[in-house]
Amino acid sequence: MDKIEHIGIAVKNLEASNLLYAKLLGKAHYKIEEVLTEGVRTSFFEVGPNKIELLEATTEDSPIAKFINKKGEGVHHIAFAVENIEKEMARLKEEGFILLNEKPKQGADNKLVAFIHPKTAGGVLVELCQENNNKQ
Amino acid sequence: MDKIEHIGIAVKNLEASNLLYAKLLGKAHYKIEEVLTEGVRTSFFEVGPNKIELLEATTEDSPIAKFINKKGEGVHHIAFAVENIEKEMARLKEEGFILLNEKPKQGADNKLVAFIHPKTAGGVLVELCQENNNKQ
Repeated sequence: MDKIEHIGIAVKNLEASNLLYAKLLGKAHYKIEEVLTEGVRTSFFEVGPNKIELLEATTEDSPIAKFINKKGEGVHHIAFAVENIEKEMARLKEEGFILLNEKPKQGADNKLVAFIHPKTAGGVLVELCQENNNKQ
Repeated sequence: MDKIEHIGIAVKNLEASNLLYAKLLGKAHYKIEEVLTEGVRTSFFEVGPNKIELLEATTEDSPIAKFINKKGEGVHHIAFAVENIEKEMARLKEEGFILLNEKPKQGADNKLVAFIHPKTAGGVLVELCQENNNKQ
């Protein structure tokens, strides 16, 4: 894994949280993007080589809505940048991790993504992500 | 803030988790360090420009013991690298964030650290950290 690509943080209200995180990080978000298939609206902040992704639910059955109902606002997932997501998924499966999707899927920010079940990864929801245009 | 310096993850058993995270990240931890004042034993993994810090409680009243009793294993804090921690603490205080320590304190990995109260930072325990030798 190459670096922490981003940390995903579940928020109740994207506009209010964009203001709060701009104060915290000392700079504004650089884009907002909706991922219809996941029922989320996201915003991104750059912090050097890393990003913070805020996630707001757009539907009641969105994973983010469920997360907030259960745990409140806070860290939702950690995403690691990988060069070859399919190779990394195969490696992790071989090591005993359970993947939440069998094939990479389209995520926000032009990424191919896959998630590892937090029960097999020490209580942490881990995302793998690969730039879409790295794909051969 | 310059980058995500590390993500702190609370674990029950450092040895077991070192094996698990070595499998996940594809490489072993590079050091173990005990911080007596915080009641924790930590281990560090490098992931490109970032680190993963695993934290195991060494006393029953350690913040990590309390965290695990309440929430189980998982992400405990996010640490951002800053160049001048005192300046950044003053800026954040001015912006309305509540700091958990008034002065920077000695943390693991030769850092000066300060924490922001999660209630003022969207449910996230945020750590600021500065290399000790950056200090003038």
